[in-house]
Amino acid sequence: MGQRDRRVQLSEGIRACLFDVFGTVVDWHGSVSRDLAGIAAARGITRSPLGHGAGVDWVRFAEDWRRLYNPAMEEVRSGRRPWTILDVLHRESLVHLLDEYGVDGCDDADIDHMNRAWHRLDPWPDSVPGLARLKTKYVIAPCSNGNIALIVDMAKRAGLPWDVVLGAEPARVYKPMPEAYLASCRMLDLAPEEVLMVAAHNVDLDAARACGLRTAFVPRPTERDDTAGPDVDLGVDDFLDLAERLGC
Amino acid sequence: MGQRDRRVQLSEGIRACLFDVFGTVVDWHGSVSRDLAGIAAARGITRSPLGHGAGVDWVRFAEDWRRLYNPAMEEVRSGRRPWTILDVLHRESLVHLLDEYGVDGCDDADIDHMNRAWHRLDPWPDSVPGLARLKTKYVIAPCSNGNIALIVDMAKRAGLPWDVVLGAEPARVYKPMPEAYLASCRMLDLAPEEVLMVAAHNVDLDAARACGLRTAFVPRPTERDDTAGPDVDLGVDDFLDLAERLGC
Repeated sequence: MGQRDRRVQLSEGIRACLFDVFGTVVDWHGSVSRDLAGIAAARGITRSPLGHGAGVDWVRFAEDWRRLYNPAMEEVRSGRRPWTILDVLHRESLVHLLDEYGVDGCDDADIDHMNRAWHRLDPWPDSVPGLARLKTKYVIAPCSNGNIALIVDMAKRAGLPWDVVLGAEPARVYKPMPEAYLASCRMLDLAPEEVLMVAAHNVDLDAARACGLRTAFVPRPTERDDTAGPDVDLGVDDFLDLAERLGC
Repeated sequence: MGQRDRRVQLSEGIRACLFDVFGTVVDWHGSVSRDLAGIAAARGITRSPLGHGAGVDWVRFAEDWRRLYNPAMEEVRSGRRPWTILDVLHRESLVHLLDEYGVDGCDDADIDHMNRAWHRLDPWPDSVPGLARLKTKYVIAPCSNGNIALIVDMAKRAGLPWDVVLGAEPARVYKPMPEAYLASCRMLDLAPEEVLMVAAHNVDLDAARACGLRTAFVPRPTERDDTAGPDVDLGVDDFLDLAERLGC
């Protein structure tokens, strides 16, 4: 079957596109480190005299923060901890890291403000125009581990034109557990095969496909995976290419 | 305090507006009866020979359908029945009414299509332009007893520009139970006093106010309440007037 036939076949039964957000729609890496550096400069937040230097490497700090993301969610996925939204997990990791880095001079309001750096992530350049095109023909929704307030604040600031916010908080379970994808389909009253999951991470797409969703991979410069895994239905260059392939 | 001062004071702390949908944003009464009459005509659906006439009064049918709405939800509110989305309750009431009216000739696909009349409700003329203005300054979200798929389908068809879909299904409880309003505020990470509930029904506004939300009444020609109850914060003419009063 030619490339064009496969494309038409893919788009025919699709009614909705679900999107991973951190890394796929927005650049968490650049945004968090810039945001924290800006807050630190404005508020005079530095390492304490007991630390190993006057400044903090906020790029490394952002990476370390992100590294604590999966272990924190795993406590919830495993059932060792009841359902807890990501803002709360993020804040606990942040407090831990500020201590580990020996950062001084943050009060509770500063910590809240720093924590909401995840509400202020910048989209990739193609995200807003690509989503606007996809929205003309499909239901578009985030299927993120971010909580609803985080996703709504981000969308208002960046202009992401979601139809509805789905994902971990409405489903009350974190990806890549099957129910995160299945509840999102069910809430749209769609069968999994009518839904396309879009992500820059093959682990997310593999989990979605195991639930019966169709899958599209988009490469993003900050993310580990360079190319689509072998079973992904569609590899695209970016969201504008995705819109094109889906006939928008 | 003058009218202007009260208005400024009202809008100052508000961050989000929640909206009742059936009757407040859309005209359920006219839309459902027109939709059913159209389906019946196209599909040759009439009363059976055992019924009391050749045609069905779809206006009365729509009113009877709506009358079964509250008793059906009350089964869930009371805990006698586990959480069940409105599409399912609506369909059960529809099957019951089709039988009661002696309507013949509907197969399962017809019944599904008729049931989704609630996904195809037309907005009041001021709803879309009013919401578009309010969206520039506030988070706008439905806080409806309609399930997510119903609200999303309606929004796509009518162009309702919601930021996020909140209400009964995300909260897993029907209005006017407090948790329907409180979960909606919590999912936005807002205090109840930062949220304005907008409705054409004082019972909805009274329940929201009891949870600490602020309230605005909008009169709609098909709904029973003509004016705001005594404790409502703000009475407006329509959504454009609401946008004006809230500084949009």
